[in-house]
Amino acid sequence: MSVKTESTEYKQGGTSCEGYFAYDDAKPGKRPGVLVVHEWGGLGDYVKQRCGMLAELGYVAFGCDIFGKGVRASTMEDCARISEPFYKDRGLIRARAQAGLEQLKGHARVDAGKVAAIGYCFGGLTVLEMARGGAQVNGVISFHGQFNTPVPAKSIGTKILVLHGASDPVTPPEEVAGLLKEMEEAKADWEFILYGGAKHTFTNYNLPPNLPGPAAYQEKADKRSWQAMKDFFAEVLA
Amino acid sequence: MSVKTESTEYKQGGTSCEGYFAYDDAKPGKRPGVLVVHEWGGLGDYVKQRCGMLAELGYVAFGCDIFGKGVRASTMEDCARISEPFYKDRGLIRARAQAGLEQLKGHARVDAGKVAAIGYCFGGLTVLEMARGGAQVNGVISFHGQFNTPVPAKSIGTKILVLHGASDPVTPPEEVAGLLKEMEEAKADWEFILYGGAKHTFTNYNLPPNLPGPAAYQEKADKRSWQAMKDFFAEVLA
Repeated sequence: MSVKTESTEYKQGGTSCEGYFAYDDAKPGKRPGVLVVHEWGGLGDYVKQRCGMLAELGYVAFGCDIFGKGVRASTMEDCARISEPFYKDRGLIRARAQAGLEQLKGHARVDAGKVAAIGYCFGGLTVLEMARGGAQVNGVISFHGQFNTPVPAKSIGTKILVLHGASDPVTPPEEVAGLLKEMEEAKADWEFILYGGAKHTFTNYNLPPNLPGPAAYQEKADKRSWQAMKDFFAEVLA
Repeated sequence: MSVKTESTEYKQGGTSCEGYFAYDDAKPGKRPGVLVVHEWGGLGDYVKQRCGMLAELGYVAFGCDIFGKGVRASTMEDCARISEPFYKDRGLIRARAQAGLEQLKGHARVDAGKVAAIGYCFGGLTVLEMARGGAQVNGVISFHGQFNTPVPAKSIGTKILVLHGASDPVTPPEEVAGLLKEMEEAKADWEFILYGGAKHTFTNYNLPPNLPGPAAYQEKADKRSWQAMKDFFAEVLA
């Protein structure tokens, strides 16, 4: 195995974006691709590390850039500020995600017929918007994402897996209930997993311990959700 | 592989019970055990088939008998009649499950330190009562079970996996919300999976298609939940 990483620039609607590929360069031929969508702070180290882990599993991973080149947060206030226009404009989220998806599908090592999208926090919201908008992917996975949308789906063509903390105050039970209603009414092929005791951002091992506030790493839920992702990929990317 | 099955009689509080073992007789030595708890009609073909499948996975499976020898239903009315005293007396459920657990742990092929319990419908309710009552098992799994209890747990020592249909009218969202509250307050190590479009009894491939009423087989949810069970056992019975 020889994981290669490369940054790449691409455009969406006049905006420059800067994404990040990771894949095993020692493995010959095309393989399934996984789009990875970042949190509300923009594409950073955590998602790049996850791209490397996906490359080790045999996928081409692409950490896309929803916010645009250089639009990255270093404080919580920055996160709120740079993500706000996207939370408010789901069409823009979908367009930026689509541009990233095209980058991934166009990569020389990717089998463009076998592509999934995963996202963390804001990225979870993004991949659900992709599914609602009919993005051509075999499946999407939300890790501790958000479920609210001004444009609920009437029908959904892609498989959905939602991995969520049972004690996530950012996306509380009422929002879970809304997703359940939307997905069942749309007759979606979806699956929803709650992890006991898990708060928001439960997969992010870079979080310092004993944080005040809604986010905390939980190793057990991190491992179980990664396994659930692998099972899902075994089904949708086989 | 040579799956051996054997019926066995045992007693609980003066009542004779008749359970069902299945294990690979060609495999030497002790191995983890899985207690399997039947639906509201009593121990029947479906659970016996699942015991055989668990034997093929390498476990000693024991289909226990909660209702007592010969107490079996052949109609829905029978199911309701014979299960009712147990729904009303959770102490009796726990005692009968415990008697079954002791049979399993006492089997010559079972490593008594590595035992889990799974249950279907009424059996799902039963294994949750076992967890609430402090049964000495490494984990329990409810397949399309029921969650109500007059004796919610203050704390829970065993791992719990709950596999549930998103459109199960027997155990609706309000009962799910109650379980979530109970488990989070008890700080349980639990995981909850909802399968989109799945109704009650979604794993039972013996159900005729297009049944009226709350129950329906769903192949996708059946396969995914069986995989989730295997992942859970890999964690708790390793």
